[in-house]
Amino acid sequence: MNRYAFLIEYDGTPFCGWQKQESSHSVQQALEEAFYCLTKESMVLQGAGRTDTGVHALGQVAHGDCQGTYIPHRLVGGLNFYLKQAKHPIAVLGAALVEQDFHARFSATKRSYRYWILNRLGPTVLAPHRTWQVRHPLDIEKMQQGASYFLGTHNFKNFRASDCQSNTPIKTIEHSTIFRVNEHLICYEVAARSFLHNQVRRMVGTLKIIGLGKKEPQWILQLLDPQHPKKSPLSAPPDGLFLSHITYGTNLFNGEPRLL
Amino acid sequence: MNRYAFLIEYDGTPFCGWQKQESSHSVQQALEEAFYCLTKESMVLQGAGRTDTGVHALGQVAHGDCQGTYIPHRLVGGLNFYLKQAKHPIAVLGAALVEQDFHARFSATKRSYRYWILNRLGPTVLAPHRTWQVRHPLDIEKMQQGASYFLGTHNFKNFRASDCQSNTPIKTIEHSTIFRVNEHLICYEVAARSFLHNQVRRMVGTLKIIGLGKKEPQWILQLLDPQHPKKSPLSAPPDGLFLSHITYGTNLFNGEPRLL
Repeated sequence: MNRYAFLIEYDGTPFCGWQKQESSHSVQQALEEAFYCLTKESMVLQGAGRTDTGVHALGQVAHGDCQGTYIPHRLVGGLNFYLKQAKHPIAVLGAALVEQDFHARFSATKRSYRYWILNRLGPTVLAPHRTWQVRHPLDIEKMQQGASYFLGTHNFKNFRASDCQSNTPIKTIEHSTIFRVNEHLICYEVAARSFLHNQVRRMVGTLKIIGLGKKEPQWILQLLDPQHPKKSPLSAPPDGLFLSHITYGTNLFNGEPRLL
Repeated sequence: MNRYAFLIEYDGTPFCGWQKQESSHSVQQALEEAFYCLTKESMVLQGAGRTDTGVHALGQVAHGDCQGTYIPHRLVGGLNFYLKQAKHPIAVLGAALVEQDFHARFSATKRSYRYWILNRLGPTVLAPHRTWQVRHPLDIEKMQQGASYFLGTHNFKNFRASDCQSNTPIKTIEHSTIFRVNEHLICYEVAARSFLHNQVRRMVGTLKIIGLGKKEPQWILQLLDPQHPKKSPLSAPPDGLFLSHITYGTNLFNGEPRLL
């Protein structure tokens, strides 16, 4: 068997998420179908990050096994042909033949996400479904103070979805910074080896409440205390969230995918 | 009569351009219809820049006269309501009551454009119709050298469309710089008091030929010589072009629109 890894970009809007589900439309299934159309082989893909309904990816990574041997850049071209034909907003940006012990999910050492907030009154027509529109002005300095409290190892039990299946709520945040890209647009960047289900969106929701001045940045310290009885009250919508990069020990695809 | 100015963002993809034309679908007409739905008054709009078919705007400015007196932010909300109802990808970001001698086109002191090139093999699904995809690697240093030759006052007769109606081909470029935003994305920024028809897209097309190594940057000096017998051979597609900002003597709307 040969194991291939793929670098994948997608618009999450029309999908139920990465993960295959019965009777809904997943990114994984769309890719597996395109692989079958191209090679007449079935491949089961394992994704590095299980993005939720409506969440986008600039640099999702997945791997799968097959009998045939294919030239990676031909796989890229062929998969994109069938994805386009099926009108799926998914693009394969790279492919690589990898070792049998490579695992897109378990070999990953870091997952990087970006979240975009459109902070203005007027709606966006140039990037629909790509931002969270917040009409009231946000205090970016307070948000950055709050974002810095996430850094390091904490118990994130107050930032997980009720259906989260992770063994432990202890996670280590390696990067957490929020900044104004310009007058209208705010970007939050966060990275960790792994995240709980819904964690990034709940972190962003919390930062928004702080940015509106409804809570002080120190509120995050309370929510990070596992004794604190209340959960973070707000999960940011999926539209603004992008899985931007998966880091491995080696550079699988010669370069990073960063469109936005 | 009252004169109002509007700050406007649009996705140019479905339109024949800014300017109203018989039997096609223009941004100007869509806005005039929205204004009529809101106020039952007819307003004829004058735009600062006549963007072509498929060209986008982050900060188009237009003005028009009407009998009624309206609170500017109510105009913004009302126009956006009717634009959304009509499914036009147009957003009004600001409105202001202006002096009778203000003219969106003639009072403008600078027009700023950005052009986005997606320089990679894989297609884009996150920003369709927002970039020019160039699959071969582009030499950004040579392109920047070429871009710098555009600065200053030159005769742009080799960079105008055959139907260009401007009185003179002499234009003064105040800003011309190209840079990699990241590994996949290149941005060209250019600003001048005014441009000839098709000028920016022909400038970008020329830079692309240089970036591919088919011509040296000094080729631009030849094309800028009015004695040179040949026109610039390539006009970049409209998809990547954004009218990003119009500068006036005063700040009409408290701030700049910059989504991308």
